[in-house]
Amino acid sequence: MPYEHEAPKAEHYLSVLEEIAAGIRTGRGRSADYIPALACVDPDRFGMAVADLDGGVCGVGEWRTPFSTQSITKVFALALVLAHEGAELWDHVGREPSGNPFNSLVQLEYENGIPRNPFINAGALVVTDRLQTATGDASADLLAFLRAESGNPELRFDLEVAASEAAHGDRNAALAHFIASYGHIRQPIPPLLDHYFRQCSIEMDCADLALATGFLARHGVRADGSRLLSRSEAKQINAVMMTCGTYDAAGDFAYRVGLPGKSGVGGGIVAVVPNRCTVCVWSPGLDARGNSVAGVDALDAFTTLTGLSVF
Amino acid sequence: MPYEHEAPKAEHYLSVLEEIAAGIRTGRGRSADYIPALACVDPDRFGMAVADLDGGVCGVGEWRTPFSTQSITKVFALALVLAHEGAELWDHVGREPSGNPFNSLVQLEYENGIPRNPFINAGALVVTDRLQTATGDASADLLAFLRAESGNPELRFDLEVAASEAAHGDRNAALAHFIASYGHIRQPIPPLLDHYFRQCSIEMDCADLALATGFLARHGVRADGSRLLSRSEAKQINAVMMTCGTYDAAGDFAYRVGLPGKSGVGGGIVAVVPNRCTVCVWSPGLDARGNSVAGVDALDAFTTLTGLSVF
Amino acid sequence: MPYEHEAPKAEHYLSVLEEIAAGIRTGRGRSADYIPALACVDPDRFGMAVADLDGGVCGVGEWRTPFSTQSITKVFALALVLAHEGAELWDHVGREPSGNPFNSLVQLEYENGIPRNPFINAGALVVTDRLQTATGDASADLLAFLRAESGNPELRFDLEVAASEAAHGDRNAALAHFIASYGHIRQPIPPLLDHYFRQCSIEMDCADLALATGFLARHGVRADGSRLLSRSEAKQINAVMMTCGTYDAAGDFAYRVGLPGKSGVGGGIVAVVPNRCTVCVWSPGLDARGNSVAGVDALDAFTTLTGLSVF
Amino acid sequence: MPYEHEAPKAEHYLSVLEEIAAGIRTGRGRSADYIPALACVDPDRFGMAVADLDGGVCGVGEWRTPFSTQSITKVFALALVLAHEGAELWDHVGREPSGNPFNSLVQLEYENGIPRNPFINAGALVVTDRLQTATGDASADLLAFLRAESGNPELRFDLEVAASEAAHGDRNAALAHFIASYGHIRQPIPPLLDHYFRQCSIEMDCADLALATGFLARHGVRADGSRLLSRSEAKQINAVMMTCGTYDAAGDFAYRVGLPGKSGVGGGIVAVVPNRCTVCVWSPGLDARGNSVAGVDALDAFTTLTGLSVF
Repeated sequence: MPYEHEAPKAEHYLSVLEEIAAGIRTGRGRSADYIPALACVDPDRFGMAVADLDGGVCGVGEWRTPFSTQSITKVFALALVLAHEGAELWDHVGREPSGNPFNSLVQLEYENGIPRNPFINAGALVVTDRLQTATGDASADLLAFLRAESGNPELRFDLEVAASEAAHGDRNAALAHFIASYGHIRQPIPPLLDHYFRQCSIEMDCADLALATGFLARHGVRADGSRLLSRSEAKQINAVMMTCGTYDAAGDFAYRVGLPGKSGVGGGIVAVVPNRCTVCVWSPGLDARGNSVAGVDALDAFTTLTGLSVF
Repeated sequence: MPYEHEAPKAEHYLSVLEEIAAGIRTGRGRSADYIPALACVDPDRFGMAVADLDGGVCGVGEWRTPFSTQSITKVFALALVLAHEGAELWDHVGREPSGNPFNSLVQLEYENGIPRNPFINAGALVVTDRLQTATGDASADLLAFLRAESGNPELRFDLEVAASEAAHGDRNAALAHFIASYGHIRQPIPPLLDHYFRQCSIEMDCADLALATGFLARHGVRADGSRLLSRSEAKQINAVMMTCGTYDAAGDFAYRVGLPGKSGVGGGIVAVVPNRCTVCVWSPGLDARGNSVAGVDALDAFTTLTGLSVF
Repeated sequence: MPYEHEAPKAEHYLSVLEEIAAGIRTGRGRSADYIPALACVDPDRFGMAVADLDGGVCGVGEWRTPFSTQSITKVFALALVLAHEGAELWDHVGREPSGNPFNSLVQLEYENGIPRNPFINAGALVVTDRLQTATGDASADLLAFLRAESGNPELRFDLEVAASEAAHGDRNAALAHFIASYGHIRQPIPPLLDHYFRQCSIEMDCADLALATGFLARHGVRADGSRLLSRSEAKQINAVMMTCGTYDAAGDFAYRVGLPGKSGVGGGIVAVVPNRCTVCVWSPGLDARGNSVAGVDALDAFTTLTGLSVF
Repeated sequence: MPYEHEAPKAEHYLSVLEEIAAGIRTGRGRSADYIPALACVDPDRFGMAVADLDGGVCGVGEWRTPFSTQSITKVFALALVLAHEGAELWDHVGREPSGNPFNSLVQLEYENGIPRNPFINAGALVVTDRLQTATGDASADLLAFLRAESGNPELRFDLEVAASEAAHGDRNAALAHFIASYGHIRQPIPPLLDHYFRQCSIEMDCADLALATGFLARHGVRADGSRLLSRSEAKQINAVMMTCGTYDAAGDFAYRVGLPGKSGVGGGIVAVVPNRCTVCVWSPGLDARGNSVAGVDALDAFTTLTGLSVF
């Protein structure tokens, strides 16, 4: 048996989810506005799902409405690269919190082009570069993985979103060229950026994402029972999510929620209760640091009501 | 009963500690050298202790040799301030990782004099300032708490170390004045620094520290069964230790050890296994970021052998 | 004869000064507001004076109204230290523009506690420290020099202003302690700050300041014909004024005015036309970078009308 | 007559040049090594030329040996853009010293993508972008200007050097994309970089460069007597050279040399004595900040021997 306990089934959490949904205050914060496709999403929307270790899932609100996953996919790309090359990755990207939104570039310069962690854009570009080198088609590989884990063969790139990201992509291009100037990116940059933007554009709903994150609660075991990562590697990804998963608010997220989590500017957040379950919440209104306001509140309530914080 | 499980007794961990001690490579890294009293300590020394929830403790190596606690006491000062004033503290100090050793000052400037977290020196000065305001004698209050929790009435300030810190204290004076210029320090600075240096100078051994940290594993309950902090507050301190407790290596510590922890430049580290036990390790050889090399290795081995990482 | 040309007498410039005064727009910008004594000064006031190489002086507007010299005195302290110790000073303070207001502290940290130049506060503290070491009474020495050069024995410290600076002095205390932590300040910090604040508090009028700056136009020769600095040293101070004399606007000042100059937050600016004359203008309304708005305009007009820019 | 004095002829300076050449210590510093074409140049080489206002020129050493102009061409591109659009340029690039090599990127971020001045790479990319917009062929336009001013129709791009720069061009690409993300670059980036690298690759000798810089000593008047820039604009370029022309050593250059100057990593430096003459020196050994060691020494000696510093 790949994991230890008889953890509760997803339905066990339904009443908690309903209590959270009944009390949640949506409509705070602002939808991401740097590309039109995200800006037009109503910040009032809300959905939340829990998946158990056996592939059961239940949810509340708009838990079956697809949304733009954005940075959440950085977790899956990281997992795939670790499965391919193991700890060698850490020679090219760090695993420390970045500390400050404004200094992403100065830190890159100060630290010789090695991004602080795989969840800031700079680090995710390194991860995608390595996935591309390992697989020859990074974004397709990632999509196939997400389809398999979520059990949803309909998942697809939103090419309109990807094109919109590319049209506003100068900053990511700057990061990629800057890292390349230190020798930590090996692929040609224009196609690398295409893979990166496609990766961010994948649409999933709360159920899809909670299920796809399951391997981290199962300590590395995929939905089909095969092992993607060692027990230790899976725990390490959880650790990186805890310290770096929510932009420059990881300390606050650990303080309030107490779970490994990863957010995206589409308004989604996934969280892992090791050995128990995974949670995904979605509400597009973001705070100043890019995390869903209602999403963090909902996860805060979840660990308060269930006592499932790791601390 | 203030906590849930029948957690194992301290002796349960003795064989694991012996296995760790047998395999540990000490002598790497360098003792802190900014004050003579620390520089003369042999980096080869090693001790480790585990304390259970009921006050039992066992250890290996030099687990009964007192050493300079230094920054480890920041955890206890934080706990005492939270007990006094609760969440109001967070208006004056953040709870985000600082990101980079070099930018402590620029971050202070960029973020209007609010230190990033209570475990960098800037933040600890704010905590001591508030403890001083609340109690009138911050360092004495802290010492009394540590004596009570460790059950060791012999604990004392090392006034030679405190004087040595003061003689090399220009940088901490600079931080204190800088924060005061933004209005986040209220006490006169010279006596505040005295309290701060005395707080850092307290000598404890591994058993003392493991016992004194017990309230964080007991979710806020002190050694005598009284409650210092709410369950939620205790978890929050654990969260801050996880994301900020080991200088600019918190990400690496979470990745390798997977427990809330707090290190000091005297070579000690405390770690918390919520609801189970606390661990303290000591070995004076430090890595470039100020954490004990053998200490982190020993804690890494501890969670690997016991499976007790929170992830 | 210590200097070359038959330069024109001060009266030669009177019609130009009158034209400038007739056209100047005062009332823009804001008086410095960090201490009450400066905040209450009407930003509408304006005076301007030119001194020739022989001690003649003429002016327009409120050219005989004393104002707080503030940072302008940094020029004279620098000159006195160079006269005492020569180029050795440059081992402890640089002579490069600081580049950015926000990074004074990070630069100090990045550059090992050596301030970028003698005209930022950090650098001026180093200069005062060295003057104190050389003379035993830095501020008195400076005051005596200014009285002699201006021919005005009534010059005095404004002790109310100095006290007010001290009461708001945490930031300068932070700088001093920070530099001391790198070994570039040798005097005890509290009395050093007293000297520094007294130095900044001296009141002078436009005529006093234009006359006192004369030694820089005379290539190092004092009002009484004795030599304070070598020709080369005097030119070097002019160079430092050109590249560093007007806070983070030295490039703009060189571009618009084209003369070595030094400004203060009291609204005064002195400028040097080597081998010809000196100019002092005063108007308390400051721009965002701390320079007098009408003062820079007036000097811009002066070099445009006279063609006396060094470029 | 477009300029005032009867300035001396170039030959007037020959004995000074010979004295400098006799005393110069070459071989210090290192040739630029980031591209092979520069790395292979012997750091021992030395040449120096003076051009008068009438197109006379004389020199010593290897004053007729072409070398790679590199950043020196930024002065000419700036002049051409100012001639096209005047002060509107300053909405897109500043004119303040950058302060610190390490913070070029953080400053760009902090200051909303507006480079500090036209002589750092970031600012020069903005200038080339605007020249390209104005002329349709920025590098050809620049080359034509340099041929005309130097009277040397043989000047050409070194396409091997340009290709080598492009092959190591990730950092400049990063800068260009980063600025574009703030809207201050309008041309497509790959061809813009091609123009920029060609501009830097032009080979000229000391005589060519001294002659080509003549319009700045003639206050805007070209070699053929036509006016490129207003008197005021020419003075303003001199001011920007003084405060920003020698990388992060502009303060030191002003202090030692006291003339507007612009250096390049090929080892060349041009300097302007307004209304008198221009000087070009070449010696490939660079100091840590990218300026020719023997070149700065030679210019220092030039102003010491002639008294021609502007201060």
